[in-house]
Amino acid sequence: MLYEINEKAIKLENEGKKIIKLNIGDPDLETPPEIVEAAYEAMKKGKTKYASAYGEKKLREKLAAMHGVSADNVVVTPGSKWGVFATMFLLLRGGGNVVTPTPYWTAYELTAKTLGAETRLLKTELDDKWRIDLEAFERLIDGNTRMIILNNPNNPTSNVIDPKVLDGVVQIANAKKIPILSDEVYGTISFVKTKSILEYSGNHVMITGFSKMFTMTGWRIGYVVASKELIDKIAKLNQITITNVPVFIQDAALTALGMHEQLTKGIKMEYQERANMACKILAKAGLEFTAPDAPFYVFPRRRGLDSERFALDLLDKGVAVAPGTSFGDYREHFRISLTAPRSDIETALNRICEAVR
Amino acid sequence: MLYEINEKAIKLENEGKKIIKLNIGDPDLETPPEIVEAAYEAMKKGKTKYASAYGEKKLREKLAAMHGVSADNVVVTPGSKWGVFATMFLLLRGGGNVVTPTPYWTAYELTAKTLGAETRLLKTELDDKWRIDLEAFERLIDGNTRMIILNNPNNPTSNVIDPKVLDGVVQIANAKKIPILSDEVYGTISFVKTKSILEYSGNHVMITGFSKMFTMTGWRIGYVVASKELIDKIAKLNQITITNVPVFIQDAALTALGMHEQLTKGIKMEYQERANMACKILAKAGLEFTAPDAPFYVFPRRRGLDSERFALDLLDKGVAVAPGTSFGDYREHFRISLTAPRSDIETALNRICEAVR
Repeated sequence: MLYEINEKAIKLENEGKKIIKLNIGDPDLETPPEIVEAAYEAMKKGKTKYASAYGEKKLREKLAAMHGVSADNVVVTPGSKWGVFATMFLLLRGGGNVVTPTPYWTAYELTAKTLGAETRLLKTELDDKWRIDLEAFERLIDGNTRMIILNNPNNPTSNVIDPKVLDGVVQIANAKKIPILSDEVYGTISFVKTKSILEYSGNHVMITGFSKMFTMTGWRIGYVVASKELIDKIAKLNQITITNVPVFIQDAALTALGMHEQLTKGIKMEYQERANMACKILAKAGLEFTAPDAPFYVFPRRRGLDSERFALDLLDKGVAVAPGTSFGDYREHFRISLTAPRSDIETALNRICEAVR
Repeated sequence: MLYEINEKAIKLENEGKKIIKLNIGDPDLETPPEIVEAAYEAMKKGKTKYASAYGEKKLREKLAAMHGVSADNVVVTPGSKWGVFATMFLLLRGGGNVVTPTPYWTAYELTAKTLGAETRLLKTELDDKWRIDLEAFERLIDGNTRMIILNNPNNPTSNVIDPKVLDGVVQIANAKKIPILSDEVYGTISFVKTKSILEYSGNHVMITGFSKMFTMTGWRIGYVVASKELIDKIAKLNQITITNVPVFIQDAALTALGMHEQLTKGIKMEYQERANMACKILAKAGLEFTAPDAPFYVFPRRRGLDSERFALDLLDKGVAVAPGTSFGDYREHFRISLTAPRSDIETALNRICEAVR
């Protein structure tokens, strides 16, 4: 359905209609020019050759220092998504099952299915503030469970898992010796303190990327922090698949990290202001939601809404959103990406509120 | 062993020794500056966002026109290697076997193994000018054979398959309805006319890239030409793995194609001259080999040689080559990559000849 909406949006645009596309999480902001220049300088220096399947030494060392691990625990990947795929590919060979709370990024399930593994979903609810019921969660785990996936902060709710609940999930995982894949791609620019899986002991896997942090979505660069054993396996998989992330892109990412404070401060503030505006407008229209703990999404509910129908109709009013059914069993919800200029977001939100009235 | 040699070479370099590295196929030539500028222009234009998992429309259309197919038959991949992996992943799910002649690029077998499939090797010999014995080839195929892999021109021999032999292979494949994955990454700059798998009917897969043609190894861009059905499946796999090749890299590749004649003429001539020089020096030393039909490799033999021992010893003389055992059952052979400046190649070849005396 997500793809159907996107295709219809593009079709309408090709017919000359203006569509405010709040259906996908690709920021309107530009990659900071310092990052572009760093890539260009690296290209001119001839950093256009084959390179290590682990990633460049300097970048790995910098990331390792940031996370308080050794460079041996870091591998650079073409986007965090590749980190997710590679980890799932390696842990799910021969089947088994994955346990993950919903609402969720459906690529997890699609990947599991592609690899011949089952996905077991634990539904969480807006009325519980998306709280994971630990007992129910534990009941989903059995002898065939190969991994747990958490997305923290979460897409589509932008909710950060309560640290005590996270403690509980990790306790269950550690007791059963099941690795947690923690997709923390929204973590680096979250509005609230977000506890990382790396703050716990256990054989867990932290995956994140540069896309959201530095508006580098289309550059395709992310990384995985895990045991040396898993990192070595991912590097071996890289050798027979993607070889390496272009070194000039790794150089650009290293430059970005060096300007971290300066570059992300503005980005984070912009998203916080967009979120505040969205909350105000949506609340006024009587929509129910949790205020975002992180960029870029809000996941409001209207009782009785058929969000698929709603999203299709809304397109004719020039606004694209994602129906809640794209994230699990959430027909009354829809996801708004706050990834357009503020004036566009305001226009779109007003049309949305009118439409749900 | 290939990795052992490479690691030892890097270690010696770190100790301050000069090593002429003819062990890997990464050209010393630089990416033409026009290509670098095109990437930079695209970045500045904001072509740094998520994009189609199929690749950019313009690039696909250009490639389709070059190969006389529809854009629906083309998908852009992060390197030709990803095309190989994706195709094997999709065709070998659940096992089966792959048939391929040797000497061969061992990544095929490694990938098959990673995917739980068997690789069946047909040995070809220098004394037969690497000719594929069609009867023996056909005998290797059985009901579990899911694909045939050809590498044409071949790594490590730089031999182009005789068109009549290729006709025979395709006939067998078509009769048995087995797809051929034809890795033609060295084809675009071969010295002799090279028949592509696309000149045949049948449900075959052609994979190539920009690495060798435009000295863009580290840019990671290639493409697959196949049935729309397979292309759609690869694009779906892209969606859950690599998302897309950065658009600014696709723009650079499109610029490269527009200057094809101009850019590749010089590259091809340089490799032809290196090959001629290598043939002369190696023949004088009594080494046996077939003259390369394409860049970058020569695969000479010395009767009685233990190429693993030889390659390790040669490192102490400041030259890295790849032992023949890295390409199948070829202990008496070794592979020389002509991917260094000509004066370095000459020095290295003379040391090699001295060492085999």
